[in-house]
Amino acid sequence: MPSTPRTLGVLLFEGFELLDVFGPCEAYGIRDLDGAFRIAMVAEKPGPIASAQGPRAVAEFGFNDCPRLDVLLVPGGIGTRREVDNGTLISWLRTRAAEIELVTSVCTGAALLARAGLLDGRRATTNKRSFAWVERQGPKVNWIKQARWVEDGKFATSAGVSAGIDLALATIARLVSAEIAEQAASAMEYEWHRDAAWDPFAKINGLM
Amino acid sequence: MPSTPRTLGVLLFEGFELLDVFGPCEAYGIRDLDGAFRIAMVAEKPGPIASAQGPRAVAEFGFNDCPRLDVLLVPGGIGTRREVDNGTLISWLRTRAAEIELVTSVCTGAALLARAGLLDGRRATTNKRSFAWVERQGPKVNWIKQARWVEDGKFATSAGVSAGIDLALATIARLVSAEIAEQAASAMEYEWHRDAAWDPFAKINGLM
Repeated sequence: MPSTPRTLGVLLFEGFELLDVFGPCEAYGIRDLDGAFRIAMVAEKPGPIASAQGPRAVAEFGFNDCPRLDVLLVPGGIGTRREVDNGTLISWLRTRAAEIELVTSVCTGAALLARAGLLDGRRATTNKRSFAWVERQGPKVNWIKQARWVEDGKFATSAGVSAGIDLALATIARLVSAEIAEQAASAMEYEWHRDAAWDPFAKINGLM
Repeated sequence: MPSTPRTLGVLLFEGFELLDVFGPCEAYGIRDLDGAFRIAMVAEKPGPIASAQGPRAVAEFGFNDCPRLDVLLVPGGIGTRREVDNGTLISWLRTRAAEIELVTSVCTGAALLARAGLLDGRRATTNKRSFAWVERQGPKVNWIKQARWVEDGKFATSAGVSAGIDLALATIARLVSAEIAEQAASAMEYEWHRDAAWDPFAKINGLM
């Protein structure tokens, strides 16, 4: 266990996808990790934020009072269609990414990183149903059609929704230890996909 | 699609397990279901409720103003250790269960149903790490050690954490249609365990 916990910032916006956020939070916050990650929920303004499915989560911090972050999680969801044009959010991502150790996205969250220019010249992936729309948000990105997740430097982007859990476990293996990641997956009774190339959904959605 | 949506009540309490709640909510609330389920977050008192991992979700309703429910989801989490002795919650479960079409639990949520006497004489399962503790909450329950989920009449109990997603998809297949459940799993890019008997975690945790 690291003696100093890392702070995981989780971005919220109206219409975020529930599992994109709470699948990874389950893994990063599970007791087996013994507090290796402190979770900070952040949105443009603090307060309750409605998900795509309806239930609301509470953003503890706004962009202005958000603490220093070590890892960032950018979820997808129908709200990304609006947030790609939210200059405040895009510019916050661009500024914050510079100081963050690892920037991760789940699903269409990659569209937000792409619009911030953060993925230019990099390999990245995203949701397989919304692939064409996300591609258009970052024409200079090397979009990988078949991948559970893609790591390129300090950016790690996952495929849709449940893929975020696999990326979170891979990240825990990388930043904490493989043993602790295995324990976390077992505690979640989750059959973890350890292979970043595993992706039957590219074909199901006609991308291959 | 049913013309009248069902209302899914989701019970929250301090220390609920994030994925127990939001894995199923992702499935029940996904767009492919076209509003077949309306999600109502309910707690003893309305307002923000802290999860076991830290992030807070908002309970829209308290026990006193909770609307009529068709389906109920009872999550687990470390908070169940306290809630088994919360007479108000246990008695609310007992009263409400009588009028509900389908009562489901995830993980140690089964301990709360057991303490309400709702599982007496029935088959049920729970989290595989906390099995012995849950068993003690319901000595008259026929606890099944190896199962992803167990259905008995109008009660359906799942194994730990991620198993709740599989039970939710099975429930959608049963109440809506198998085709829509498949679509929802695909939209979540989730490799659904369709077999209620699949459970490697019973052995991993020394129950077999």
